[in-house]
Amino acid sequence: MLDDTFAALADPTRRAILARLRSGEATVTELARPFNMSQPAISKHLRVLERAGLVSRSRDAQRRPCRLQAGPLKAATDWLEDYSRFWENRYQNLDELLDKLKDEDANDG
Amino acid sequence: MLDDTFAALADPTRRAILARLRSGEATVTELARPFNMSQPAISKHLRVLERAGLVSRSRDAQRRPCRLQAGPLKAATDWLEDYSRFWENRYQNLDELLDKLKDEDANDG
Repeated sequence: MLDDTFAALADPTRRAILARLRSGEATVTELARPFNMSQPAISKHLRVLERAGLVSRSRDAQRRPCRLQAGPLKAATDWLEDYSRFWENRYQNLDELLDKLKDEDANDG
Repeated sequence: MLDDTFAALADPTRRAILARLRSGEATVTELARPFNMSQPAISKHLRVLERAGLVSRSRDAQRRPCRLQAGPLKAATDWLEDYSRFWENRYQNLDELLDKLKDEDANDG
């Protein structure tokens, strides 16, 4: 599950497709337009996103618009959440360093 | 950058290595132990993690312990953050549906 999600996200075109779908459903034709890519190339990326459960397609045979499915993104974020204390500590250390430098600067002046 | 991060995270062994490094530095030998994997196999995963900037190794020639680097994980989380309103809406919709069902149930009783 996480394997498929992270693998699907490891491509700039697929991330751009997801970003486009944030503003609403879109057909393959609509998705292909801004990318200067063939529809088959876009369809291939869509299949990866569908397999990862990140995109669903309606059964409307004429248009079959694609829709964002955010569930797997939440699972990925939950996994990453366990690491947040590491970058928070890192920024805290930076803040402390900046405060120290400011104090030294004030003492010099 | 995000390509490398997400590709590195798309493997359960590499995610388990990062989880292990949350509790502190570890050598390749220490990392290989719980996985029932050869050291070369673990080293290959470590190279992927190092290329993605998720793991650094000290220059101590004897041990070269590995350390977690959380910066790229923060960048990945920041990217995912833009999608949080989708799963939040989804849960809000579920809450509303449950409230509606409870009201109907109360009216039936």
